[in-house]
Amino acid sequence: MSAPVRIGLIGAGRIGASHAAVVARRVHGASLVAVADPRPGAAAEVAGPLDARTETSVEAVLRADDVDAVVVAASSVAHRDLVVAAAEAGKHVFCEKPAGMSLAEIDDVRTATAKAGVAFQVGFNRRFAREFAAAHEAIVAGRLGDVRQLRSLTRDPGRGPSDPDGVPPWTIFTQTLIHDFDTLNWLNPGAHAVDVVATAGSLTAPGHPTLLDHATVVVTYSNGAIATAEASFAATYGYDVRAEVLGSEAMVTMGEGAQSSLRLHDGSGRLATTAHSDTELLLDAYTGELEELVAAVREGRAPSVGADDAFAAFAIAQACIDSFTTGGRAAVATAVPQEA
Amino acid sequence: MSAPVRIGLIGAGRIGASHAAVVARRVHGASLVAVADPRPGAAAEVAGPLDARTETSVEAVLRADDVDAVVVAASSVAHRDLVVAAAEAGKHVFCEKPAGMSLAEIDDVRTATAKAGVAFQVGFNRRFAREFAAAHEAIVAGRLGDVRQLRSLTRDPGRGPSDPDGVPPWTIFTQTLIHDFDTLNWLNPGAHAVDVVATAGSLTAPGHPTLLDHATVVVTYSNGAIATAEASFAATYGYDVRAEVLGSEAMVTMGEGAQSSLRLHDGSGRLATTAHSDTELLLDAYTGELEELVAAVREGRAPSVGADDAFAAFAIAQACIDSFTTGGRAAVATAVPQEA
Amino acid sequence: MSAPVRIGLIGAGRIGASHAAVVARRVHGASLVAVADPRPGAAAEVAGPLDARTETSVEAVLRADDVDAVVVAASSVAHRDLVVAAAEAGKHVFCEKPAGMSLAEIDDVRTATAKAGVAFQVGFNRRFAREFAAAHEAIVAGRLGDVRQLRSLTRDPGRGPSDPDGVPPWTIFTQTLIHDFDTLNWLNPGAHAVDVVATAGSLTAPGHPTLLDHATVVVTYSNGAIATAEASFAATYGYDVRAEVLGSEAMVTMGEGAQSSLRLHDGSGRLATTAHSDTELLLDAYTGELEELVAAVREGRAPSVGADDAFAAFAIAQACIDSFTTGGRAAVATAVPQEA
Amino acid sequence: MSAPVRIGLIGAGRIGASHAAVVARRVHGASLVAVADPRPGAAAEVAGPLDARTETSVEAVLRADDVDAVVVAASSVAHRDLVVAAAEAGKHVFCEKPAGMSLAEIDDVRTATAKAGVAFQVGFNRRFAREFAAAHEAIVAGRLGDVRQLRSLTRDPGRGPSDPDGVPPWTIFTQTLIHDFDTLNWLNPGAHAVDVVATAGSLTAPGHPTLLDHATVVVTYSNGAIATAEASFAATYGYDVRAEVLGSEAMVTMGEGAQSSLRLHDGSGRLATTAHSDTELLLDAYTGELEELVAAVREGRAPSVGADDAFAAFAIAQACIDSFTTGGRAAVATAVPQEA
Repeated sequence: MSAPVRIGLIGAGRIGASHAAVVARRVHGASLVAVADPRPGAAAEVAGPLDARTETSVEAVLRADDVDAVVVAASSVAHRDLVVAAAEAGKHVFCEKPAGMSLAEIDDVRTATAKAGVAFQVGFNRRFAREFAAAHEAIVAGRLGDVRQLRSLTRDPGRGPSDPDGVPPWTIFTQTLIHDFDTLNWLNPGAHAVDVVATAGSLTAPGHPTLLDHATVVVTYSNGAIATAEASFAATYGYDVRAEVLGSEAMVTMGEGAQSSLRLHDGSGRLATTAHSDTELLLDAYTGELEELVAAVREGRAPSVGADDAFAAFAIAQACIDSFTTGGRAAVATAVPQEA
Repeated sequence: MSAPVRIGLIGAGRIGASHAAVVARRVHGASLVAVADPRPGAAAEVAGPLDARTETSVEAVLRADDVDAVVVAASSVAHRDLVVAAAEAGKHVFCEKPAGMSLAEIDDVRTATAKAGVAFQVGFNRRFAREFAAAHEAIVAGRLGDVRQLRSLTRDPGRGPSDPDGVPPWTIFTQTLIHDFDTLNWLNPGAHAVDVVATAGSLTAPGHPTLLDHATVVVTYSNGAIATAEASFAATYGYDVRAEVLGSEAMVTMGEGAQSSLRLHDGSGRLATTAHSDTELLLDAYTGELEELVAAVREGRAPSVGADDAFAAFAIAQACIDSFTTGGRAAVATAVPQEA
Repeated sequence: MSAPVRIGLIGAGRIGASHAAVVARRVHGASLVAVADPRPGAAAEVAGPLDARTETSVEAVLRADDVDAVVVAASSVAHRDLVVAAAEAGKHVFCEKPAGMSLAEIDDVRTATAKAGVAFQVGFNRRFAREFAAAHEAIVAGRLGDVRQLRSLTRDPGRGPSDPDGVPPWTIFTQTLIHDFDTLNWLNPGAHAVDVVATAGSLTAPGHPTLLDHATVVVTYSNGAIATAEASFAATYGYDVRAEVLGSEAMVTMGEGAQSSLRLHDGSGRLATTAHSDTELLLDAYTGELEELVAAVREGRAPSVGADDAFAAFAIAQACIDSFTTGGRAAVATAVPQEA
Repeated sequence: MSAPVRIGLIGAGRIGASHAAVVARRVHGASLVAVADPRPGAAAEVAGPLDARTETSVEAVLRADDVDAVVVAASSVAHRDLVVAAAEAGKHVFCEKPAGMSLAEIDDVRTATAKAGVAFQVGFNRRFAREFAAAHEAIVAGRLGDVRQLRSLTRDPGRGPSDPDGVPPWTIFTQTLIHDFDTLNWLNPGAHAVDVVATAGSLTAPGHPTLLDHATVVVTYSNGAIATAEASFAATYGYDVRAEVLGSEAMVTMGEGAQSSLRLHDGSGRLATTAHSDTELLLDAYTGELEELVAAVREGRAPSVGADDAFAAFAIAQACIDSFTTGGRAAVATAVPQEA
């Protein structure tokens, strides 16, 4: 059996802590060796219970001989620089989405990881959720025929951001819906997004227009398929991730949110408890995506979801920004736009 | 088009009122002409809004030239006499279950209706519920292969009888589970019940032993199939009617209790409102069974569920009484037991 | 009890035949007296088995003293003229959707029926489907809080039109999605549609550009709510009608397509048979909408869904045509556009 | 962090191989160090890919200093001797069900492990399935009120045993339904089984009477609750594990068999693919039960499901044998029966 893939975590926030625990406790063939985070104590809090060491800097992780791969879960604005530095240090990289803050940044990531010959994977977790993977498999096998109409949806639990002005502009497109854009791309194999029209608003905090907390995006694909991506930052009933694909031969639906098959029947009716966090709903998918990284590293191959996918999904997010700004339809870029 | 089948109702209690409304408002080709009930006012209350006349006696209904068929929804202890009298008066008969209070009584019903050449139907409503009918059809078509293991369940809504001592002995077997016994017989076509073991108790009112409010009955069939019938008088979550049949080739399940496909999602989870009465859950089945009566009368044929079915189901109920009394297994009669 | 409402049918095509049977056999307090259709034999074929008379002309129906109300199920292009003529003849009117072929036509319908003082109802059947009615009730009762994001969907069964060039232009907007537009309006009470962006294509018959067989429409409402309406003419799995509404407090979903609660389990898995026609899926809703007409006529009140609703839904359809034509966003009219 | 609990596997058959992989790849804080099996090659086949060593004898495993705990997955007839030997060697023990082949054997296991002061756990996996654990929690929290009527069901996938005469007598009670008996005991906390009536037959292979391949058992509890346990060896649609509990306040259902939330809709209807093996359906539960062993060993406490539970479930299985043999009701022992 091969030696374990030794992993360093960069960024010990909520999702970083989740990835660290998944690596340490659930991914066979991986070990968590180091955790770095600029916030004092944050790295130690994650590393300690998982028997990993705390590093005081990213550089220390990237220099470490006992680190084979890094998981980048820092702030999105740092993703490009961190991935490029990791690649130059010869580390394989798993990077949370988005892989950069612009198409140019993601292109840098693509170039740097390709040049370094390291594995690069972006955190599009739904590809590793069981029902999504089964749907993709059915589509690729031709069971749906031609793909014609799609929908992908993400709703975050709760009542919306506590600090509406603290949410970076375009978050709903670049951070949330980017999952749906990748899902739609992936479930419509062989086609690419052509144009986009985005409708969005600030509904939980009407006086804060930079916050877009609900958005519905229609994407037209090169094969004529019409896709809808929907997001909300305020689902009182929990974390909701669903999709459906209508093909010429069959239709598939994915996602239903129940925590388990338990149903409680009382005077109110029949109740299914729903999942209230991504780490609950998607734990197996989070495990699966990191297992994919480990497998790719061990097998010396590219992970199944890489920089091209990161680019294609971000291109839709970028087109959403354009569409929302103009109010009209916007083209989806297939290459980094040239400066005017 | 044929003239409508003119119907008289005998017994204007809860279920009688329901049947009257179904005849008057939902069954094509039928008209409600007369209602009789010994309780002053009860007949008028049902007949008035439905434009039927009130009769002061059963005899008046049976004598009436404008009554083609009667619906017997009186007290079960009167069923035999009423059906026999109706048959002798040349009226077609729909009788609520059970068709009599003993196998001998049901045999009288069978003989009298056969002799009179009138249509006779017993109120085994589940045969007319869409999912049960589809299951039966699949079984008859051979899609399940050999029937091997069955379950049928009835749960009444609420918290149990308000007057535990007012419930006639053996009600759970002869009035409630008799539906399940017929369902099991019908979903295991070509086989007959051989023996029974019944377990029951007084759980809502422990100090009242004549009340059996929960019962689980295992029925063994001539083809080796093993069936369970379960009943409860106290389901807080509503009226619950379900069944399943395991065959050598496939399995079918029926019943789920939701009022509609509406699901309400909030902080508690995903809620399906459940039906809280038989007249709500089974309205289409109540309509279907009376449509069958009308069709049989018009076509001059026997209804699809008649005296033999009433007898076979009651034979299981009778065996339950025997089994509960002795604590052991009891044989299911196929003919009226001879006096010792 | 009041005398039955006597109904004449104008247009004995597929949906007209369905309405005729529903009136004759399922709607309490109604009777079908006459059927008219220009096609020789079509009227007789519907009228005969239902004991109604065949009329040779629309005029004969409108002149008939024994006709209280008409059901207009003729070609959509004739709706305006038929409704106006019926109103002028003093007949109450149920008209299939759309109530006219332009906002001006629907305004004529509104004016004529108001002036004549007759009841006018448009055939937006989903308002009478149990789950949709329950959702509406929950929304009106405030259980969802503020309405924020909606979806309504209609998919016709089959593989698309057999004669792609025979489908009138804009059918998907004016005939199919008009149901969804009304549903969205109704489930977002107190708000009105502001603008629309429509994406559509000819996917079953790519060489026939006047046929739009798939469409996804995003509607923005005056309360900021963002709604999606989706339609397809080619669902191999059956007739599919669903909706969902996300509010600030809760979310509701409607529709699931199974014929009944029967589930067949075999080597393939667990199968729910789906409905393959509107008359199957929506039979109770078709009954409910005609019961509403009868109740409104008897009670001397306006039906719950009338000319204003017909106008509001068609205004969205008209905006879809504008949006599709320009490729951009189009405003939804609130009054008949003035000639330039 | 504590050192890993080092585990030796005794018995490298199907379920042993599954447990080995779960220990090696999914249980945090455990390591698989050794595998023993009397069949040449079987141990090596399991141990090799998991980086564990192969031992030529049970004794070698029990003597090994680097083995803290053993998983006993050998033939049931050897369970008692293996557990007693392991306990005497000071090893903690996880033993597949049943923990012995008689109440006396299980009592030996109970005594030996208690005397040695080692942790002992029996493989009642459903306690670690998410929906069953949630149901138990709801019941213990009082949300169901008094438990009144229960059902637990196990159906093995396929078409029945390929060698009907090779199945040891009473397997359906002692090996299959024993899971259901423990489930029922556990979901009716504070009560104990009083008597049993078992109905069973050889339906897949009628000429082989020692094979019982379908059984339905009714268990009466000390609190009056009535429970049904059902098993089949021949479910074409997959591995099926379900339960339900009716209480005075609410009802819970568990289990539905779908592999994921994916639904495929085509001309046949809406299909949910079902699980076809225990290791697929119960993978998380298998992981959970071994995590419990590891946690108990580390925390120096007894596992949550031990020898008393093994005894109580087997006592019901033994009563089934008695009941089937006599045809009547049989008492459930609470202590090892004294020799006559």
